[in-house]
Amino acid sequence: MSTRTLIRGGLVITAADETHADVLIEDGRIAAIAAHGSAVAQGWTADRTLDATGKYVIPGGVDAHTHMELPFGGTFASDTFETGTRAAAWGGTTTIVDFAVQSRGQALRAGLDAWYAKADGQCAIDYGFHMILSDVDESSLKEMDLLVAEGITSFKLFMAYPGVFYSDDGQILRAMQRSAANGGLIMMHAENGIAIDVLVEQALARGETDPRYHGEVRKALLEAEATHRAIQLARVAGAPLYVVHVSAEEALAELAGARDKGLPVFGETCPQYLFLSTDNLAEPDFEGAKYVCSTPLRPKEHQAALWRGLRTNDLQVVSTDHCPFCFTGQKELGRGDFSKIPNGLPGVENRMDLLHQAVLDGHISRRRWIEIACASPARMFGLYPQKGTIAPGTDADVVIYDPHAEQVISAETHHMNVDYSAYEGRRVTGRVETVLSRGEPVIHDRQFTGRAGHGCYVPRATCQYLG
Amino acid sequence: MSTRTLIRGGLVITAADETHADVLIEDGRIAAIAAHGSAVAQGWTADRTLDATGKYVIPGGVDAHTHMELPFGGTFASDTFETGTRAAAWGGTTTIVDFAVQSRGQALRAGLDAWYAKADGQCAIDYGFHMILSDVDESSLKEMDLLVAEGITSFKLFMAYPGVFYSDDGQILRAMQRSAANGGLIMMHAENGIAIDVLVEQALARGETDPRYHGEVRKALLEAEATHRAIQLARVAGAPLYVVHVSAEEALAELAGARDKGLPVFGETCPQYLFLSTDNLAEPDFEGAKYVCSTPLRPKEHQAALWRGLRTNDLQVVSTDHCPFCFTGQKELGRGDFSKIPNGLPGVENRMDLLHQAVLDGHISRRRWIEIACASPARMFGLYPQKGTIAPGTDADVVIYDPHAEQVISAETHHMNVDYSAYEGRRVTGRVETVLSRGEPVIHDRQFTGRAGHGCYVPRATCQYLG
Amino acid sequence: MSTRTLIRGGLVITAADETHADVLIEDGRIAAIAAHGSAVAQGWTADRTLDATGKYVIPGGVDAHTHMELPFGGTFASDTFETGTRAAAWGGTTTIVDFAVQSRGQALRAGLDAWYAKADGQCAIDYGFHMILSDVDESSLKEMDLLVAEGITSFKLFMAYPGVFYSDDGQILRAMQRSAANGGLIMMHAENGIAIDVLVEQALARGETDPRYHGEVRKALLEAEATHRAIQLARVAGAPLYVVHVSAEEALAELAGARDKGLPVFGETCPQYLFLSTDNLAEPDFEGAKYVCSTPLRPKEHQAALWRGLRTNDLQVVSTDHCPFCFTGQKELGRGDFSKIPNGLPGVENRMDLLHQAVLDGHISRRRWIEIACASPARMFGLYPQKGTIAPGTDADVVIYDPHAEQVISAETHHMNVDYSAYEGRRVTGRVETVLSRGEPVIHDRQFTGRAGHGCYVPRATCQYLG
Amino acid sequence: MSTRTLIRGGLVITAADETHADVLIEDGRIAAIAAHGSAVAQGWTADRTLDATGKYVIPGGVDAHTHMELPFGGTFASDTFETGTRAAAWGGTTTIVDFAVQSRGQALRAGLDAWYAKADGQCAIDYGFHMILSDVDESSLKEMDLLVAEGITSFKLFMAYPGVFYSDDGQILRAMQRSAANGGLIMMHAENGIAIDVLVEQALARGETDPRYHGEVRKALLEAEATHRAIQLARVAGAPLYVVHVSAEEALAELAGARDKGLPVFGETCPQYLFLSTDNLAEPDFEGAKYVCSTPLRPKEHQAALWRGLRTNDLQVVSTDHCPFCFTGQKELGRGDFSKIPNGLPGVENRMDLLHQAVLDGHISRRRWIEIACASPARMFGLYPQKGTIAPGTDADVVIYDPHAEQVISAETHHMNVDYSAYEGRRVTGRVETVLSRGEPVIHDRQFTGRAGHGCYVPRATCQYLG
Repeated sequence: MSTRTLIRGGLVITAADETHADVLIEDGRIAAIAAHGSAVAQGWTADRTLDATGKYVIPGGVDAHTHMELPFGGTFASDTFETGTRAAAWGGTTTIVDFAVQSRGQALRAGLDAWYAKADGQCAIDYGFHMILSDVDESSLKEMDLLVAEGITSFKLFMAYPGVFYSDDGQILRAMQRSAANGGLIMMHAENGIAIDVLVEQALARGETDPRYHGEVRKALLEAEATHRAIQLARVAGAPLYVVHVSAEEALAELAGARDKGLPVFGETCPQYLFLSTDNLAEPDFEGAKYVCSTPLRPKEHQAALWRGLRTNDLQVVSTDHCPFCFTGQKELGRGDFSKIPNGLPGVENRMDLLHQAVLDGHISRRRWIEIACASPARMFGLYPQKGTIAPGTDADVVIYDPHAEQVISAETHHMNVDYSAYEGRRVTGRVETVLSRGEPVIHDRQFTGRAGHGCYVPRATCQYLG
Repeated sequence: MSTRTLIRGGLVITAADETHADVLIEDGRIAAIAAHGSAVAQGWTADRTLDATGKYVIPGGVDAHTHMELPFGGTFASDTFETGTRAAAWGGTTTIVDFAVQSRGQALRAGLDAWYAKADGQCAIDYGFHMILSDVDESSLKEMDLLVAEGITSFKLFMAYPGVFYSDDGQILRAMQRSAANGGLIMMHAENGIAIDVLVEQALARGETDPRYHGEVRKALLEAEATHRAIQLARVAGAPLYVVHVSAEEALAELAGARDKGLPVFGETCPQYLFLSTDNLAEPDFEGAKYVCSTPLRPKEHQAALWRGLRTNDLQVVSTDHCPFCFTGQKELGRGDFSKIPNGLPGVENRMDLLHQAVLDGHISRRRWIEIACASPARMFGLYPQKGTIAPGTDADVVIYDPHAEQVISAETHHMNVDYSAYEGRRVTGRVETVLSRGEPVIHDRQFTGRAGHGCYVPRATCQYLG
Repeated sequence: MSTRTLIRGGLVITAADETHADVLIEDGRIAAIAAHGSAVAQGWTADRTLDATGKYVIPGGVDAHTHMELPFGGTFASDTFETGTRAAAWGGTTTIVDFAVQSRGQALRAGLDAWYAKADGQCAIDYGFHMILSDVDESSLKEMDLLVAEGITSFKLFMAYPGVFYSDDGQILRAMQRSAANGGLIMMHAENGIAIDVLVEQALARGETDPRYHGEVRKALLEAEATHRAIQLARVAGAPLYVVHVSAEEALAELAGARDKGLPVFGETCPQYLFLSTDNLAEPDFEGAKYVCSTPLRPKEHQAALWRGLRTNDLQVVSTDHCPFCFTGQKELGRGDFSKIPNGLPGVENRMDLLHQAVLDGHISRRRWIEIACASPARMFGLYPQKGTIAPGTDADVVIYDPHAEQVISAETHHMNVDYSAYEGRRVTGRVETVLSRGEPVIHDRQFTGRAGHGCYVPRATCQYLG
Repeated sequence: MSTRTLIRGGLVITAADETHADVLIEDGRIAAIAAHGSAVAQGWTADRTLDATGKYVIPGGVDAHTHMELPFGGTFASDTFETGTRAAAWGGTTTIVDFAVQSRGQALRAGLDAWYAKADGQCAIDYGFHMILSDVDESSLKEMDLLVAEGITSFKLFMAYPGVFYSDDGQILRAMQRSAANGGLIMMHAENGIAIDVLVEQALARGETDPRYHGEVRKALLEAEATHRAIQLARVAGAPLYVVHVSAEEALAELAGARDKGLPVFGETCPQYLFLSTDNLAEPDFEGAKYVCSTPLRPKEHQAALWRGLRTNDLQVVSTDHCPFCFTGQKELGRGDFSKIPNGLPGVENRMDLLHQAVLDGHISRRRWIEIACASPARMFGLYPQKGTIAPGTDADVVIYDPHAEQVISAETHHMNVDYSAYEGRRVTGRVETVLSRGEPVIHDRQFTGRAGHGCYVPRATCQYLG
């Protein structure tokens, strides 16, 4: 039995257009868009009509980088798929792409199935998976082809974390060659972990155990180095490359240089690198631990470079790398040894709002906001146009956004399952009011109206920036 | 009395989205877009229904660089506003921005009024004007403000043609300062004309009179030099810059470098630089004269760089610089002295088709085709979203494009008022079938159904890539 | 009748070697160099023996950029060839290359003869001439060939000072083409004077008349722009290029980029850009006028870039651009209008000492000191090995330099004919003790023992960095 | 009992000066240099007088990269210290710096002592040692300090050859940190061996076994990558870096970029990269094996870039990487598997002649020839001014070089202990006539007059391009 929903009177914003229009939803999809006040629009009726006058009507956010329930450093990321996707919905995000993890010595299949199981029936919004390759060998290379066919079309490798996720340059090259053949996209954590581990050991030996040393040893030059290396390996393999969580100006410069040559190289940054800095890592009383993630936060002057990269399209995507650990009991594992602090920040709920604030601050345009937060991640990871835009025929993942409401970000009020906010006390303008997922209200007038299990697994096509 | 037009069953392509949708037009505007086959779409009726099954439905092209009836070198460009805009319509272009010319020693006003008069009542499609500044002085600087207010928001300066259009660096700087203040956009013909004129004189003195020497004396390095200089002057002035007809890889490199720094610098290229080369200039029997334009055609290897620039968005716009002169009687003025050949090529009719061929050839994606030919020129010159996209509320300038039809470009069959085609004999796939201008069929099933005078002058807002 | 002079026991430093050696001089030339304490050295006798124990024995300095008695802005540089060369000798410089000036509308010959006459019989040390081209036309181009044959092998052009020395890009291109043919070297004052004059006029109109505005209007970007343009014109002409008085980091970057491509492009900087800054231009009570020169002093951070350029050999020469004007009566012409302040600083006496201080400060090595101050200018301008080194057969222009003596630079004690010092009060370590010019003591134990007329005109070969 | 040798009438060429001078040698050192024909020179007498009229008198060559008797791939480089240094002398080289090798699991000391023993009493000319680090750990790091104190001031690391000489990035970083502290210089074999080994395995699996595949799998991009990585690691460590055998234009570009920033980064290339190419590797009948070395020969177009790098001083040194293996019995080990061909070429005898030919070919100047072949390697490795120049007090390592003699390079006539020449049949102009090592004739009028054991071990100071 079909339900018609009508969103009236808002400013519909996509990556390309801004138009005062009414949006008609049938059977979970956008059926039509009509000029507000036109005869055709006025003739429309619906089961449910939402008044968006004075509001924005935008595509639901696509967060292409989350880690729900990730096992890391002897503990687990504190958001489950249930709590994490609910928080995402509160923040205006209607699709996440999380990372299934291959355990060392096990098949990709086993890891993927484990993650299917974790998410199944838990999610408030739709979700897909990337696959983390921990063991690149003949067997896992063959499995890559199968996964691409199944809708897992992107694979993450690590140049950091030796002994855990680390792949050497030969493994990276082989995986890139394979992805060049099967259409997959390699996502790279680009830091020279081998060199960093030496600096970590030396810092600890000097008694430098505070969280701020996490930022000092993971040097910008070593992010830039790994980024350059990943690009060169991708050139040798004839493969595209997507570099995750770019934080250093020098790393961005490597991407920009490669893109000037026309190479299919892409970059993602995250709100923490745009809004936070080493000043946070240096907060006293071990509070800096809240901001420990890798790549690390950088000195403030890197922020301007990242904003510029977003404007010049040398960076295409803003994801969260959402990977929350509670300060109490989890972050505290690293008291006296920064290298034992679980790496990761909460953020899945804050991304859309922070980027809207960036619009107000003049860093990006309104359309670019939607592009980097919705359309580009959807295109990059084969979800477009099903996700990431508002156009006839696409999934009715729609957010009614109030651009004038003010809010103060706080752990008191957020919905992520973590005992602190990385943006505690920050006042921003703009707030999610209503969120539809495939036409169903998940958030309605700032009430959660969704349910665990509404969200479906979405198999993905290959990257749409290629070919 | 309102007319409803319905375009059914096509693939609607904009700069951002591709969707199978029906498009409803009311009163010359896009009223609504609905998923093809949806209940809402099926319920639509119209006075006129166009079947676009198997076709593309795209925004009408925006050609931001034409010179109808331009006086040059003692003659006039051979297309009038009537013939030129009719040919544009045949080629799927529904808006041109032409150049009004200030005569030396006269007011901008006088030039603009002359061009208003030339176009008034003649055009088959909508049109706007840029203004060519031939005399930058206190008086013309003041007039710039008035013109911006009136919808003439872009101003062309020449670093070439000393004694004719040439402005010196001080004049350029002053005009840029003024545009930084009034929101206008400076468009630059970037060639070091002072140095080129020395080379011209020396070539002629050596008896090098053939058209191919036109390409040799107007060196790529001197285009790059002027491009660099224009960028630096714009930085000093704090003004944005749009460089017209970029043809040399080295000039593009200057733009790319500036854009990497985040500077508001933009670049246009033209089909002739993407599809033709110095090989054409070297055609025997003075045939090379057909390809004489400035900046000149470059050796073939520059083409790859220009395509790359279009992909990386270091070039944003493809315009035609349409400025036709008949071979017989006009181009022939330069027999025995290449410097007397009127500069310019016909092309307003061929742009959309050639760029579609580039899609098939793998140079650009379908969406990028629409972006560089429709959306970006509209945004760049303050016509968006009225022009350049298909969205509710925008002008119903729509082309039904047959992506499978084959055609051979030829002066025999083209509609421009010029006795040769720069692309004579070239076979391309894709052809305009029907063209609507504000909802009215101008071309209908490959019949001209428009009329002189349908086209309206469009005042323009300021560049939408700024602020 | 021959005289033998023997310098015993010093550390002989050239651009390449440092050796403890005795130097034997016969007939004004270096006859031999022997290891100190060797049998052969111990066997030497001489008419005059100078003890250099604990001292450096270095080639006399070559200052390739001076303007004695230059007419400028209605006045004359305050040092005559007599006073200026005497001061040079006091500072350890034994050769200057000054600039003969072509008057507009007159032949090069007339200008050169005027300068021959000014210098003849006046100089304490040897001298040569560059020629300033004020009027590039067929006639002056032909004269260039004659001058090269006569030993005037370098020609200065100005992209600044419209209406005075300014050449347009066509004239520059022609002069470069000519020099490419006749072996001459074009020296360029690289500032976009046309644009700068607009900024000057605007600043004055805003009431910004203080000397510090001289630094603000002559923007670094406009030096970089002109440098880039000069390089491109030189590439078109196939000619080498020497850019005088480089002061801006951005201009240096243009040189470095060109040199990375292997282009024959050279750069000079001056002590004022290495040791002074816009802080000096901003000194109150019109004191900033003392530091007005063009290119202007830059903010302090440019100094590090210039030192780096000297280390990486992207800059090859340090000259003084010595062009003194007294504060009283001359600099004062610009009270109330910075554009009327005569451009230039005194410095011919200070160069060797300031650069020695730079050795102590760690900016350059001892050998590099000699290279940039003696050997490279001599090679660049065709004086090598006659000047610029200490080797058998070369002119015995030798300085015994005390590296430990301290001095305070001051107008009280300097020998230049100008009422202030740009380095007043600066304490430096290192001091000239004795200076030989072709074997004759000009300064002996810090007494002037030379005479006007000892210095000879030196015709020059062509640049030795080419071919 | 002292011997005096006098070289009369030659053109003495050093890195800085060219002068017609007589050179007097006492006790194995340069005692004095006097202008030819001067009274002082005419008064000189000697036990042995060599007539150099019409000849060059140049410093003996310093070859900073040789591998005598190197164990590699189950065999040994075919030149012993006796045969290799004799051949070096024939070629005008009077000092080599060879590589002592640490065996995995053994102390540096053990390796060094083994190499001392190999060379002791065998050499015709003087020699020093670099140390190859095969095992970077706490113990070997401590030994580095001792070796620096003992005159082994440079240490070679490999980013290639996993399982043999390879160090990982952490080991490289530690060694660089140590060298930053103890004054040592890290020499890097910069190729990404981990990635290359994947490509080797894949090529062999495809049946690509011919020597030319050696050049294809060791990609220029992977040399550039490793060069970039080494530079970044050196920046992190605050250490200087010397990259050996640079062969790829892209790798050179990395060095040039680093040097533009003022970083203490240096590069060496070798005659084989300047004169040979992948055309040689592709010679039929397994003849390509003669040219197998790593980094590999590159396509011809790289040669121009390397010559340019030598002119711009982005490359400072030309060494040979002399590491000969006979075609018969040694190179043949790799028939059917290019990866089993011993890596290395003979060349110690040909370097000075080939570079002199480059002077005649216009690639470099005469002084630059001496600089890159004698002075710079001596300065780079702490042998200056004892070696690498002709100046009073320095070792009398002197070559009388006939610049007009012609010769044809051939295995028939060369003195290296290897059955082929990489330059077989090449006609060059210029030939060594007489060679003095510390004043003793080793080659005299093209007769070998030296002896095994004349050559002494030379402890070295630290790199003279630093501090």
